[in-house]
Amino acid sequence: MLDVEAALLGALERSGAVPAGAREELLAASRDAELDLAALGRATAVWGTPVPGMLAQLRERLGSGPAGEYLHWGATSQDIVDTAAMLVARRALRALLADLAGAADACALLAERHRADLQAGRTLLQHASPITFGLKAAGWLVALEDVRGELARIDRHELVVQLGGAVGTLAALGEPALEVVADVARHLELGAPQLPWHAARLPAVRLACQLGVAAGAMGKVALDVTLMAQTEVAEASEGTGDARGGSSTLPHKRNPVGAVAVLACARRAPSLVATMLASMNQEHERATGAWQAEWETQLELLCLVGSATAALHEVLDGLEIDARRMRANLGLTGELLMSESVVAALAATLGPAGAREVVGEAAAAALRDGRSLREGLVEHEALAELGDPQLLARALSPERYLGATDELIDRALARHGSRLEEGER
Amino acid sequence: MLDVEAALLGALERSGAVPAGAREELLAASRDAELDLAALGRATAVWGTPVPGMLAQLRERLGSGPAGEYLHWGATSQDIVDTAAMLVARRALRALLADLAGAADACALLAERHRADLQAGRTLLQHASPITFGLKAAGWLVALEDVRGELARIDRHELVVQLGGAVGTLAALGEPALEVVADVARHLELGAPQLPWHAARLPAVRLACQLGVAAGAMGKVALDVTLMAQTEVAEASEGTGDARGGSSTLPHKRNPVGAVAVLACARRAPSLVATMLASMNQEHERATGAWQAEWETQLELLCLVGSATAALHEVLDGLEIDARRMRANLGLTGELLMSESVVAALAATLGPAGAREVVGEAAAAALRDGRSLREGLVEHEALAELGDPQLLARALSPERYLGATDELIDRALARHGSRLEEGER
Amino acid sequence: MLDVEAALLGALERSGAVPAGAREELLAASRDAELDLAALGRATAVWGTPVPGMLAQLRERLGSGPAGEYLHWGATSQDIVDTAAMLVARRALRALLADLAGAADACALLAERHRADLQAGRTLLQHASPITFGLKAAGWLVALEDVRGELARIDRHELVVQLGGAVGTLAALGEPALEVVADVARHLELGAPQLPWHAARLPAVRLACQLGVAAGAMGKVALDVTLMAQTEVAEASEGTGDARGGSSTLPHKRNPVGAVAVLACARRAPSLVATMLASMNQEHERATGAWQAEWETQLELLCLVGSATAALHEVLDGLEIDARRMRANLGLTGELLMSESVVAALAATLGPAGAREVVGEAAAAALRDGRSLREGLVEHEALAELGDPQLLARALSPERYLGATDELIDRALARHGSRLEEGER
Amino acid sequence: MLDVEAALLGALERSGAVPAGAREELLAASRDAELDLAALGRATAVWGTPVPGMLAQLRERLGSGPAGEYLHWGATSQDIVDTAAMLVARRALRALLADLAGAADACALLAERHRADLQAGRTLLQHASPITFGLKAAGWLVALEDVRGELARIDRHELVVQLGGAVGTLAALGEPALEVVADVARHLELGAPQLPWHAARLPAVRLACQLGVAAGAMGKVALDVTLMAQTEVAEASEGTGDARGGSSTLPHKRNPVGAVAVLACARRAPSLVATMLASMNQEHERATGAWQAEWETQLELLCLVGSATAALHEVLDGLEIDARRMRANLGLTGELLMSESVVAALAATLGPAGAREVVGEAAAAALRDGRSLREGLVEHEALAELGDPQLLARALSPERYLGATDELIDRALARHGSRLEEGER
Repeated sequence: MLDVEAALLGALERSGAVPAGAREELLAASRDAELDLAALGRATAVWGTPVPGMLAQLRERLGSGPAGEYLHWGATSQDIVDTAAMLVARRALRALLADLAGAADACALLAERHRADLQAGRTLLQHASPITFGLKAAGWLVALEDVRGELARIDRHELVVQLGGAVGTLAALGEPALEVVADVARHLELGAPQLPWHAARLPAVRLACQLGVAAGAMGKVALDVTLMAQTEVAEASEGTGDARGGSSTLPHKRNPVGAVAVLACARRAPSLVATMLASMNQEHERATGAWQAEWETQLELLCLVGSATAALHEVLDGLEIDARRMRANLGLTGELLMSESVVAALAATLGPAGAREVVGEAAAAALRDGRSLREGLVEHEALAELGDPQLLARALSPERYLGATDELIDRALARHGSRLEEGER
Repeated sequence: MLDVEAALLGALERSGAVPAGAREELLAASRDAELDLAALGRATAVWGTPVPGMLAQLRERLGSGPAGEYLHWGATSQDIVDTAAMLVARRALRALLADLAGAADACALLAERHRADLQAGRTLLQHASPITFGLKAAGWLVALEDVRGELARIDRHELVVQLGGAVGTLAALGEPALEVVADVARHLELGAPQLPWHAARLPAVRLACQLGVAAGAMGKVALDVTLMAQTEVAEASEGTGDARGGSSTLPHKRNPVGAVAVLACARRAPSLVATMLASMNQEHERATGAWQAEWETQLELLCLVGSATAALHEVLDGLEIDARRMRANLGLTGELLMSESVVAALAATLGPAGAREVVGEAAAAALRDGRSLREGLVEHEALAELGDPQLLARALSPERYLGATDELIDRALARHGSRLEEGER
Repeated sequence: MLDVEAALLGALERSGAVPAGAREELLAASRDAELDLAALGRATAVWGTPVPGMLAQLRERLGSGPAGEYLHWGATSQDIVDTAAMLVARRALRALLADLAGAADACALLAERHRADLQAGRTLLQHASPITFGLKAAGWLVALEDVRGELARIDRHELVVQLGGAVGTLAALGEPALEVVADVARHLELGAPQLPWHAARLPAVRLACQLGVAAGAMGKVALDVTLMAQTEVAEASEGTGDARGGSSTLPHKRNPVGAVAVLACARRAPSLVATMLASMNQEHERATGAWQAEWETQLELLCLVGSATAALHEVLDGLEIDARRMRANLGLTGELLMSESVVAALAATLGPAGAREVVGEAAAAALRDGRSLREGLVEHEALAELGDPQLLARALSPERYLGATDELIDRALARHGSRLEEGER
Repeated sequence: MLDVEAALLGALERSGAVPAGAREELLAASRDAELDLAALGRATAVWGTPVPGMLAQLRERLGSGPAGEYLHWGATSQDIVDTAAMLVARRALRALLADLAGAADACALLAERHRADLQAGRTLLQHASPITFGLKAAGWLVALEDVRGELARIDRHELVVQLGGAVGTLAALGEPALEVVADVARHLELGAPQLPWHAARLPAVRLACQLGVAAGAMGKVALDVTLMAQTEVAEASEGTGDARGGSSTLPHKRNPVGAVAVLACARRAPSLVATMLASMNQEHERATGAWQAEWETQLELLCLVGSATAALHEVLDGLEIDARRMRANLGLTGELLMSESVVAALAATLGPAGAREVVGEAAAAALRDGRSLREGLVEHEALAELGDPQLLARALSPERYLGATDELIDRALARHGSRLEEGER
C-alpha cells in the first residue's frame, strides 16, 4: 500500500499537481519505522478498510510538508487496496511461475527418460490397455505448461492498476487524470485498465480462475503419484530427505507427504474461486461486503497455489520410479489388458464384430478358469484356422500396442522445448 | 495439542499403563518455555503433520523419564490434531455464543420497542404491504435464536475426542483402550465417539454446517441493515463511535461498516462449508489431502463466523432507527401498498374476484394520473353504492392491516424469554 | 402446488371464511386435466414465479364458483412454492430413507460376516497396521446410521409449511390467520413454523446441509470400494448383473460403476449446499434472486443424494469380498505393518523409547535387505537376550493386534439393532 | 453423440480403414427413427456411460454392414461424450454470444444517451460523489464486451475434439491415428488438442470459468438495475409487456423480474464452476466419479448463463430510465455529496489539509442543523475571506465535478464500435 501511495505522489509530482519531493519525503518517512500494525488493525475495524488508519499514521509522521498534504490525493481507499493486491499478486506469481517451470522441466525429464517404460493404462482404476509412463508424464507436462503459460500471460497483461477516485470519475485529479493513471501504472509495472474497475471485478476473477485451474492441474499429478505410491502398486515413491514422510508411530512408513500437500491445497482452491466469482455481485460504485470478501480470499489462493507449486516441484524433482514394478503390474490380469489389441489384430480377418465376439469369449473363459487370455484364445476354435502363429504373439505384446504414444510424447517435449528456447520464465 | 497429549498421559496413568507423575512432568516442561514454532513449521513440512515435530521438541526436554517415554503412547498424529481442533472449536464457540446471545437480546429489544412502528414491507425491493419494524426485528430474532440454539447443542454434544491409534483399532492401548478414550474425553470435557472417526468426518462437518447456517442468518440481518441505511431509504444507521464508518475522502459519509463486515464474512462462509463437505471424501483409514484440507478451513470458519457475530452484536446494540422516516417512506406509493387491504375489505360485498378487479382498475388509474389509490377508488363507479364511508378509510389505514403481526412478535419474544429464564448461554 | 392450494382452501372452509365445497371443486377441476405446462412455462417467465400462471389456468376452469373466487386467498406466490417444495422433499426423503436403511443393513451384514477377516489398515494409502474388514464396514455403518437418523429427524420435524401472505403478516386472512396456518400444516402433515420464513431460510438450508453430509458419508464408502476394487488390490468388486460395469471396448473390464455413480453425485453435492447457504442472503420480505436460486438447487440435491443412495444400496447389497486376497495383501510389506505391535510388545522390557529404537533399526535393516521384519528383528542384538521365543511370534500375528476391533464392531451393530427394534424407517 | 460417431466413421473412410459409405449408412439409420431414450437411460445405469447403450441400439439397426461393423472403431466412450459436450457447448455459445452482443449494444445506447444525465455515485450504498448514468452504463458495457470477447475466443479456439481411444494412445487406430483425430476435428469444426485430455480437463474448465465470469459480470448489471428500481430510488424500471413482473396479489407492483432472473442464475454459477474445478482431480487415464460429475454441471452452466444472457438482453433493451428522478435523488444529501469537490476547489488556497478540515467542519455543522453544505460553508469563517463568490457555486455544481467521465464513456464506446466494425459476432 505504501508503494501505491508513493507511486501516486510521484505521478502527481510529474503532472505538476504536487510540489517536487513529496514522494521522496514519503519514502523516507516509511523507511524510518514500521507502521504500528496493531493500531492499524484497530483503525481498520473502525473505518472498514486499512487505508485511513495507514494514512493517519503517515500524516502524523509527515507533518505539514507537501507529502503530508498531498498524500492519497485523488484516490479512494479502494484504489490503494486493489492496486496493492495486484502488487502482491505480482510478487507471488513470480515465485509460483518459477516453481511451475521447474515442475514442468521435471515432467519433461520423466517423459523422456521413461518414454518406453510400459505401464498399465488404468480407467476407473482398472487395468485397461498399456501405456508408457513417459506418456503419463507427457500428459502432466502439457497440463503444467498450459497453466504456466496462462498464468504468465496474466502476470504480463492482466495485473492492472486501480485508480478511479471516490466514484470512478477521477474528478479530484482534474485535467491530467488519465495521464496520472497511466503514469502510476507505468511506475508500478502494472497495466492501465480502460475504466476503473471498483465494482467490475474482471481482473481479480481472471487471476483467481487461472489459479484455480492451475491448482486442479497440479492436483491431478499429485493424485496419480499417491495412487502409484500405494503399497499394492509401488510404482513410484517420493524421494526422501532425512525423515521425510515418516510416521510418528510406524517406523516403516514412507508417506507421500509432498503429493498430499499438493492435494490438500488443490482441494481448497475451487471453493475460493467460487467465492471470488460470487463476489462479482457488487453494488453500484462500491460493494457492501462482496469487495471486502475478496481480500483474504485472493491472498489465500495465492498462498495455496504457491505452496502447491513448490511442493509439486519438489515431488517431481525427487520422484523415484520403479519401471520393473510397472512392467510386473502390467501382467497382473494375465494379458487381459491386451484384449483390445487382439480385437484389432483379428478384425482384419474376422471383422470387428467377429473379433470382438471371439475375444470376448476367450476373455470370459480365461477369467472363469483363472488362466491367461493367450490360453483362452489358443483354445478358441475360431482361431485354430488363422494359420499365423505370430499374429497372436504380436497382438499380445504390449510394446507393440502403444499407438501414437511416441509422437504424443514428442509433441509434449517439443512444446516444452520451444518455451525453453524463448527463454521464457 | 499439548492439552491433548497431557490428557492422554493422565488417562494412561489412571489406567496403570504409565507411572504416576508423567502428566505433571509434561505440564511442567511445557510451562517452562514456548515451543520453537519456526522449527515446528519446518518439521511439519517434513512429516506432513505438526505432531512429530512437537513430540521431538518435547522429548528433547523431557529426557528419559516416564513422560518422555510414554508421551503420545497409543495415539496417532491425527488423534492429536483432531482433538486439538475440537478444543479450539470449544474456545471459539464460547465467545461466539456469547455474542450471538447478545445480538439476539438486541433484536428482542428492537422488536419490543418498535412493535407498532409501521414500515413498508418490501418484496423484490418493491413496496408491497405494511409491516412493522418490530416484526422485521422479530424475524431476525427467531433466526438468531435458532442458530444459537443449534450451535449451543453442537458445543454441548458434538465436540468429540478423536483417539483411535494408527488405524482406529486402539491396538497399542491394550485392554483398557475404550476406558482410556472415555477418560481423555471426560478430562477434556469433550464427548466420546462411538468409533474413531479418522476418515468419517461427521463431527467436523456438522460443526461446519451449523457455522455456515449461522453466517447466513446473520448475513440476512446485515443485508437488511445496509438496505435500510441507504441514502434514499434512511430508516436505520449504525451507531457511531468516534469516526466509525467514515470515508477517507468524503467527510459526510457514514458507512454501515459493521454490517459490511458481517456481509463480507457471510459471503465467504458457504464455500468453506463446501470445502469441508467435499473433504469427507477420505481414503480408507487416513486421507491423502482431504483431511489436511480441513485444518485451516475449519479455523477460518470459526474466525469468520466469530468475527461476524461480534460485528453484528455491535451493530444491533448501536442501531439507530428512524421510525418517522419509516412512516414517511410508507407513503411513497400514494397508498398503493394498501391495495391488498382494500381488496380484502371489498371482498365481502364484491366477492374476491370483483374486489380484485375494482382495485386493479383504481390502482391503474391512480398510477396513470399520478394520484393516490384513495382518489382512484373514490371515483370508481363500483364503489359509489357501497354506502359505508368508513370502509375505505379503514381499509387504507396501514395500522389496521397488520394481521398477526402482534402475535408473531409475541411468539418471538416468548421464545427468547424462555431461553433467558433457563439461564442458557 | 395444487395440493397446497387445496389445503389452503380446505382450511379456509373450516375457518368459515370460504363456502364449503370449494376445496372439492378445485380437486375435481384439477383431476379433469393436466395443466398446460408449456403455457405455465411462458407465464413463469412473465411473472417471475410459476404461481400466477397456474392460478390463471385454474381460474379459467373454475369459473365464478367459490373455488375460483377464493383460490389462493390470503397467500402469496412464495407460500405456494415453498410449501410445495417441502412436499416434494417429503416424497423424495421417503425413498431416500428407505434406501439408506437398506444400505445400512447391508453394512451391518458385512461387519458381522467379515468381523474377523484381516485387512491392511491403510493410512495415506500406505499399509499401516492390521484391521479387519468388519471394522471398516462397521465404520461405514455408523456413518450411514448417523446421516439416516438426521435425515429422518428432518423428515419428521423440520419440513414446515410456508404461509405468510404478501409480507409475512397474514393480514389478508384476518383473525383466524394462525389457526389457518396450523390447519394447513396439519392437513399436509408438515410442521408449522413460529414465523413465516420467506426471507429467513433455515428450513431450506437445514435440509440442504443434511443432504450434503449424507452425500459425503456415502461418497466415503464408495471411495473405499473403488480403491479395494483396483486391479492391484482386488479385495472387492461390485456384483454383476448381465453386462453391468462392462466397457464399450475392453471385454474383460468390470468397472465399479455403482460406486462411481455414488462418487459423481457426492462430488456435486457440496457446491449445491454452498449455493443454498449463500442464498440465505435475502432482502427484506422477499429476495431478488437468492430465493429463486434455491428452486432447482434443492431439487437437484434431492435427486443427486437420492440417486447416490439408491446406487450405494445396490453396491453394498451385491458387494463381493475376497477375504483371501485381503489376507494376502496384508503380507505385502513383509510384516512391516506389525512394527507398532512389536514396539508395544517390547516396551514392557525395553521401555517405549528403547522398543521404538530397536524396531526402527530392524525395520530399516529389513527394508534395506528386502527381508521381513521378523528376520530383521531376530538378528538384532538387543533381542537376543529376551529369552521368550513366543513373544515375537505373538507380536507379529496380526490377529493378535486388533485392539478394540471386536467391541467397536459390537457397538456399531448394537446401534443398528436398536434402530431396527424401534421399527424405525 | 451421433454426430461424433458419424464424423469418426467419415474420417476412418477417408483414411482407408473403413469401406466407403459407412458414414452415410449411419446417418441414414439415425435419420429413420429417434433412439429409444428410456432404454438408453437404463443402459446408461448399467454401463456407467450412455455410449454402449447407444451403440447397441445403432448396431441393431445397422446389422452387419460396414457401419455396424466399424461404428465407434478406435474410440472409447469418453471420446464420444466429451466431443459431444463440445458440440453442445458450441450450439449454446452461439445463442449466448448473440444475446451478449445485443446486451452490449443496449448498454452502448444507454451510455451514449445518458452520457450527461447526473446520478449519485454510491459507495456502500451511500451517496458519495456525482457520476452520470452514462458512465455507469459504460462500465456495464466494458464488462459485457470483455466477457463476450473471452467467450468468443473460447468458441473459436478452445472447443476441442476428444479422441484417444481406451487409454489415450489411439492404439486401435493404427498408423494414421493423429490424422484421423485432425480429420474428425476439421469436420466437426472443433480444434484438435495436442494430447487426448481424458483426465486433464483444461478445455472443460476453461469454458466453465469463462461462463462463471460472464455470469458474474451480468449479475452486477442486474444488481444495479434492482437497486435503481427500488420504490425509494425509482431511477429505472423494466419495460413492461402485458402483465410482466406483476404480483399475484398486489395489483400495483411492477417487479424487476428480468433482473431477478439474471441474479438467480448468477448466484448459481460460481458453485458450478467450483464443481468443475474440483473435478479436475481425475485418476490416471479415466476418473472414478470426477469426470462423470462434469456432465450435468457443464450443461447447467450453459443453460444458466444462456438464460441469464437472454434475460439481461431483454432487460437492457427495455430499460426505462428516469433521469429527472436521478437528478432529484442527487439532491437528497443537501449537497453533501459535493464535499470532495469543495475540498478540491479550496485546496488551492487552503491546502489540502486545510480544505479537508474546513469542509469537514462545515459538513458536520450542516448535518447537525439539517441544512445544506452550502449553508454550512457560507457561515464558516475560513471562507469569509476567500473573496471569490463564484468559487463555491462552481464547486457545488455536480456537472462540473465529473472528472474524466466523458473520456471514459468515449473509451467504452470506441471499443464497442471497433468490435461492431470488425463485424464480429
